Amino acid sequence: MDTFGPSAPTVGIVGAGQLARMTYQAAIPLGVRLRVLAERADDSAARVATDVTLGSARSGHDLAAFAAGCDVLTFDHELVDAAALAALEVAGRIVRPGAAAVAVAQDKRRQRAEFARLGFPVPAHRPVAGGADLLEFGAAHGWPAVAKVGRGGYDGRGVWILADPAAAVAWWAAHGALGLEPLVEAWVPIEREIAVLVARRPGGETVCYPPVETIQRDGICRELLAPAPIPATLAREAEGLATGVAAAVGAVGMLAVELFVTGGRLVINEIAARPHNAGHHTIEGSVTSQFAQHLRAVLDWPLGATAPTTPSAATVNLLGGPDGADPTQRLPAALAVPGAHVHLYAKAARPGRKLGHVTALGPTPDEARARARRAAALLTGGASVEGFG
Amino acid sequence: MDTFGPSAPTVGIVGAGQLARMTYQAAIPLGVRLRVLAERADDSAARVATDVTLGSARSGHDLAAFAAGCDVLTFDHELVDAAALAALEVAGRIVRPGAAAVAVAQDKRRQRAEFARLGFPVPAHRPVAGGADLLEFGAAHGWPAVAKVGRGGYDGRGVWILADPAAAVAWWAAHGALGLEPLVEAWVPIEREIAVLVARRPGGETVCYPPVETIQRDGICRELLAPAPIPATLAREAEGLATGVAAAVGAVGMLAVELFVTGGRLVINEIAARPHNAGHHTIEGSVTSQFAQHLRAVLDWPLGATAPTTPSAATVNLLGGPDGADPTQRLPAALAVPGAHVHLYAKAARPGRKLGHVTALGPTPDEARARARRAAALLTGGASVEGFG
Repeated sequence: MDTFGPSAPTVGIVGAGQLARMTYQAAIPLGVRLRVLAERADDSAARVATDVTLGSARSGHDLAAFAAGCDVLTFDHELVDAAALAALEVAGRIVRPGAAAVAVAQDKRRQRAEFARLGFPVPAHRPVAGGADLLEFGAAHGWPAVAKVGRGGYDGRGVWILADPAAAVAWWAAHGALGLEPLVEAWVPIEREIAVLVARRPGGETVCYPPVETIQRDGICRELLAPAPIPATLAREAEGLATGVAAAVGAVGMLAVELFVTGGRLVINEIAARPHNAGHHTIEGSVTSQFAQHLRAVLDWPLGATAPTTPSAATVNLLGGPDGADPTQRLPAALAVPGAHVHLYAKAARPGRKLGHVTALGPTPDEARARARRAAALLTGGASVEGFG
Repeated sequence: MDTFGPSAPTVGIVGAGQLARMTYQAAIPLGVRLRVLAERADDSAARVATDVTLGSARSGHDLAAFAAGCDVLTFDHELVDAAALAALEVAGRIVRPGAAAVAVAQDKRRQRAEFARLGFPVPAHRPVAGGADLLEFGAAHGWPAVAKVGRGGYDGRGVWILADPAAAVAWWAAHGALGLEPLVEAWVPIEREIAVLVARRPGGETVCYPPVETIQRDGICRELLAPAPIPATLAREAEGLATGVAAAVGAVGMLAVELFVTGGRLVINEIAARPHNAGHHTIEGSVTSQFAQHLRAVLDWPLGATAPTTPSAATVNLLGGPDGADPTQRLPAALAVPGAHVHLYAKAARPGRKLGHVTALGPTPDEARARARRAAALLTGGASVEGFG
């Protein structure tokens, strides 16, 4: 099974954000050497990892030089050139997930088209090449409509709700020339947003974590509740869907499938072919964390158990408050909250930036969430939790 | 509470073995900078930490230079010069545990004398300055007697069972001139060995983990079972004793108190003023791991909950097998054991050397232990578990 030679394998991770940082933690007990390709020496993961290469994920040259020293190449984000990855694969490098899966994950237009073709439930959609496309789509599917950038949007950036034809015209006037490769989708009345995390090995073996609910504000995931409070039948359906999506895109490693619950049914929102914000609770709340699982999967090692270790887990993200204060300064107060697991990313504090998260486990969702919220509020001066009911 | 300035504090840890390695893992989510004083660049923790200083824990000069860059100095082992630590304290450095506590922990003769003076249960004992002391002690307390080195013994090294006066005479002839600062103790019929881990802040706040059973072979801890299968009254007594010992020695950080159960009563075996092998199960099996707890305590931050997260946890240590094989090569097979948490220390494999451990949680002790043993056997080729019933 281990094809990486007699000693510990070297996994190269492209990107050095908090996902790479938490993957580094998971690599230590496994004895896996995790090499990091960082844009900057003070990136979240670059601060804690010993083996850091400075370079750009967007440069084919940098990627090739980095991959040359690694047994397996994997990713902390999707902002890479899929063609460069394909070239690495042709050159014999092991890239997981592979170029084809990354290409689908990073391109919303292609993702929507392929999922629709395969019969997966997606909102009505079409690529947009001009304002007329928006108007035609709205006339056919009703208003509001949703405009999205085809690539690179995240945390609510790159999504616009277009209320009516006038808004659509105005939006195209402002954004049409920016090269966003946009698409337009039918607006879905969202009852709940859920996410399913799966891990898939190269041979197709797949394991699935129980669905979680993600609670967004301004397009950013603020809270996470595991398990999602949905009927068991819907949960099994979501797991089946996510497993099917993973196979369809040929994912290797972690894959997050974000879903809308609408009218009691599921619609795919988007996917990410890597560890994901919606899986942070797995560090304390699952037998195998998503980060250890990602390493196992990309190394083609046996996958770990995905069972929860607790009746309920809640994660609250720490967003930088308006005062720009570093949550590290408030850490001791938060640690006084019993059972609060604080994760700081060591990123420079800026308003709205994800600086860390807090997970708490509990016998009930309310108890877990109350603990996580209390610690998060202490860390951010209340900014990250006010407004939640 | 945080007296370490506006950003993350820097904790310096003297020694770079597996305890420092696992403390590094715990430091990452807390945003704590853990600086490591390593003897060698390939020490277990030096392989994963970014901020490594090469130097000797036995050199006052190296210690002073290292401490100068740290907010707090702490330890991965006790092989340091307590006088050098005292000098650092006089110079205003924060050393936790302090020189006085380290001096007691590292000197078995002094430890025994102080504990006896304070009324803690210890075996009958006396320092040995000549063969006559051994004979006199044996005549008074019976044979066999136990000879021990006063400092630096570990994992069964530095302990001898003296069956009778002839053995005592022979032992002195062989060891009397070696400067071992030996002591002799009454042999205790051991029913069970247990350990209690406590964490103590500088102000005296102390928390206690439930007692664990440690199963030794050839003086090395091979297995760990949490909680220890002992009556609740004895468990509470052990916790009270450990808490009292921590206060008596002025411990700060983690303190492990190893105890014998003999005739249904408790006798102190020895203490270690640092995270300890008997606490590895806390990584998965407790709300707060001993490594995170140690950082909290030495930083004078609120201590974490010590409650177990599981009915039972078992840890099996991985000792190098006679073939000198690296367990990393066998990792994939072990990861196929559901719920086995493998921790490799990235140390060069040598027969008998501690190379890692496996923890498993379970609804019953038998189930947890069976899983941990199975994975351990796969990692070591069976060497670490054969012979256990």
